[in-house]
Amino acid sequence: MDTIKHIPENGKSRVVIVGGGFAGLKLARQLAKTNYQVVLIDKNNFHQFQPLFYQVATSGLEPSSIAFPLRKIFQKKSNVHFRMADLIEVNPNMQEIITSLGSLKYDYLVLATGVDTNYLGNKNIEEFAIPMKSVSEAIFLRNSILRNYEKALNEADPQKAANYMNIVLVGGGPTGVELAGALVEMKTKILPKDYPELDFSLMNVYLFEASGRLLSGMSDKASAKAKAYLEKLGVIVKTEARVADYDGLKINLADGESFNSYTLVWAAGVAARSIKGISEVAATKGGRLRVDRFNKVYGLNNVYAIGDLAFQKEGEFQNGHPQVAQVGLQQAGNLAFNFKKNLSVNKMRPFHYKDRGSLATIGKNLAVADLPGIKMHGFIAWALWLFVHLMAIVGVKNRFFILINWVWNYFTSDQSLRVLIKPNKRSFIDRANKKNKKTNTIGLN
Amino acid sequence: MDTIKHIPENGKSRVVIVGGGFAGLKLARQLAKTNYQVVLIDKNNFHQFQPLFYQVATSGLEPSSIAFPLRKIFQKKSNVHFRMADLIEVNPNMQEIITSLGSLKYDYLVLATGVDTNYLGNKNIEEFAIPMKSVSEAIFLRNSILRNYEKALNEADPQKAANYMNIVLVGGGPTGVELAGALVEMKTKILPKDYPELDFSLMNVYLFEASGRLLSGMSDKASAKAKAYLEKLGVIVKTEARVADYDGLKINLADGESFNSYTLVWAAGVAARSIKGISEVAATKGGRLRVDRFNKVYGLNNVYAIGDLAFQKEGEFQNGHPQVAQVGLQQAGNLAFNFKKNLSVNKMRPFHYKDRGSLATIGKNLAVADLPGIKMHGFIAWALWLFVHLMAIVGVKNRFFILINWVWNYFTSDQSLRVLIKPNKRSFIDRANKKNKKTNTIGLN
Repeated sequence: MDTIKHIPENGKSRVVIVGGGFAGLKLARQLAKTNYQVVLIDKNNFHQFQPLFYQVATSGLEPSSIAFPLRKIFQKKSNVHFRMADLIEVNPNMQEIITSLGSLKYDYLVLATGVDTNYLGNKNIEEFAIPMKSVSEAIFLRNSILRNYEKALNEADPQKAANYMNIVLVGGGPTGVELAGALVEMKTKILPKDYPELDFSLMNVYLFEASGRLLSGMSDKASAKAKAYLEKLGVIVKTEARVADYDGLKINLADGESFNSYTLVWAAGVAARSIKGISEVAATKGGRLRVDRFNKVYGLNNVYAIGDLAFQKEGEFQNGHPQVAQVGLQQAGNLAFNFKKNLSVNKMRPFHYKDRGSLATIGKNLAVADLPGIKMHGFIAWALWLFVHLMAIVGVKNRFFILINWVWNYFTSDQSLRVLIKPNKRSFIDRANKKNKKTNTIGLN
Repeated sequence: MDTIKHIPENGKSRVVIVGGGFAGLKLARQLAKTNYQVVLIDKNNFHQFQPLFYQVATSGLEPSSIAFPLRKIFQKKSNVHFRMADLIEVNPNMQEIITSLGSLKYDYLVLATGVDTNYLGNKNIEEFAIPMKSVSEAIFLRNSILRNYEKALNEADPQKAANYMNIVLVGGGPTGVELAGALVEMKTKILPKDYPELDFSLMNVYLFEASGRLLSGMSDKASAKAKAYLEKLGVIVKTEARVADYDGLKINLADGESFNSYTLVWAAGVAARSIKGISEVAATKGGRLRVDRFNKVYGLNNVYAIGDLAFQKEGEFQNGHPQVAQVGLQQAGNLAFNFKKNLSVNKMRPFHYKDRGSLATIGKNLAVADLPGIKMHGFIAWALWLFVHLMAIVGVKNRFFILINWVWNYFTSDQSLRVLIKPNKRSFIDRANKKNKKTNTIGLN
């Protein structure tokens, strides 16, 4: 296979980073303007700000507000090369990766490909549930919700209308909690204005969590407050609730209860994507790759893993670190430090996670926050959540736009992005490279 | 077939408007808070601001900035009912329409369904060309352009890279002219920063027009200025150039010349969509429906047509009015006036088009403008263009966002929306209504 083009062999050590999420992007930025040549690869040409997907899904933010073109970030960094490509395989013996654009040799490989939705082996759920691990999935969820309300309007039978209006969220982590809060606010404040003919008293927002409490990564107090807030807003919260099956309309819980909804959002599990050539030797639970205290993958030379993908035992984290952005960001920072020390044994620093706290927002002006030494809830936690996320957004312009959007939405209770932009049907016809062929290939872009 | 639900029979005269574009939307807004019951139907749940599609296509604006949710516009108008549906057929004898949501009787029917891209019968062009008559097509064009640049980067042969970088626009009206100007500015100011490894001297932007001049609906002076501006910016403009064929890479002109590009945008013709039950009796050239001076469709009772769809002979317009927004807006206003006079013969006003001028923008700060009694060009025309379009945008928030976006782009020469958000693959699997079926239906959403 041909090599990827236009990446010079210039004597610099080449660090190939696969994955432009929180961890991969931070590492690439920290290695820019060092003496390394950095090649960053991602299947999308943008970085996606995951904490705000739920706002795209509930028509509160434009998708592009949280999708940052990677080329733009590295415009002025001449030693960083970006390629939009899929990783196909790694040959660690040859120190080479194979991608959809060709092969590439590396001096050092850093895998930061993260995790994807895990349906726990249930094929029906995989077919009918809606995941939310990318901007395009968030857009799809938004479109589904809007389309279902139009359909609800065309049902004479109120029970059938309710099937289109109900929304079920599975997974009581921050994603499920935040989505539940935003959706129930749509129910009370926005949708009745848009659909005056519908009876929203029939609509239910459900949140199902398999364990005994919501936000199991946070304190008991945060858990309890989140549940109280959601229930006060009108969400029907069920803990110790395991979804056994879903056929596109009927949800069956393990305990026998059943519910009806055409919209089931699955945010109940993640698993690392398998990486051919690496996972076979280094994967452990959840598909994560075993790494040492320097994030080097066990059993391989010059291959590292950071972020949700990595499984490291450190201090109290004998079952791996929580799969949260903070861990990935700190691991990226630590690895960058070590690279800058030329990976010299005497100068490297082992990774040590400092938990700076957790936040989850519930609705328009409530949140829960666990910080070192202090737990907060209510409006002040929400203001903190706003601030932290705004500062984490890339780029001044994006921060400005998002802030204006939030301020507007806050004062007008108006999510004005309730537009159902259907993908162009040609999106699935492979057009380029069709010199003399007239067949349409239905494929994924 | 069931009737559309939840539209009350309350003794009011029912005006059904099909099409929420410039003309249909204006008519609906003017009839809100009258004694009519208005039912507005559109296949999308939003109004699309067509003059700015080219900015979405060149990553200058978010799609949602120019897509206005129709339900939001009519939230407080209790006599206006909106339905997202496709028109399937009209039964004028029964005064009934059939839609994808069911049937609906009307007292008056106003067709405002506009026009779609016309490929002049050439099936190859239809298959391989990219149209730009909707937001989702503009997004598709944007994604295609970005994807092709990533592919260009992977070509070692400069000629093959050029095939991915070149862009051909067919049609020298405002759409083609504006797109050409915006694309050539991307070539000179933005893309080299994003793709430093590519040689942009190899990239060409072509604009082909079949007649003797660009902007044939404007003055000779505007035509000449537009051509001069575009050529100065670097566009290769060819008039008297008819595209005979396109196979996805090679473009053949009627005179024998050929060019290579994987991206051909077709903005060279429009035709009204056929309306079953109406077009058979009333269609004339271009599929437009023959209407009288009151926009009533000839040969039918209580059926009207406004906007691009309508063909009316009036004054100097013996071949119909130009298919531009102004005409549709004025016809909507006139028809609204007549409806408010209860269509009383003594009180109705025949339509008389007042040409208030035409504008076309070319690049970042140039435009041409024909106004009654004065022709303008250059920066001042561009400022006027900005102002007129901003005022025509629906809603204060949208105007504000667009203005901020434009100001930012102007001062930073930075179109920062270069994100390729691929439609979720599930978009094409029909999910709802699958209670016990496990088959996936690939269909259009």
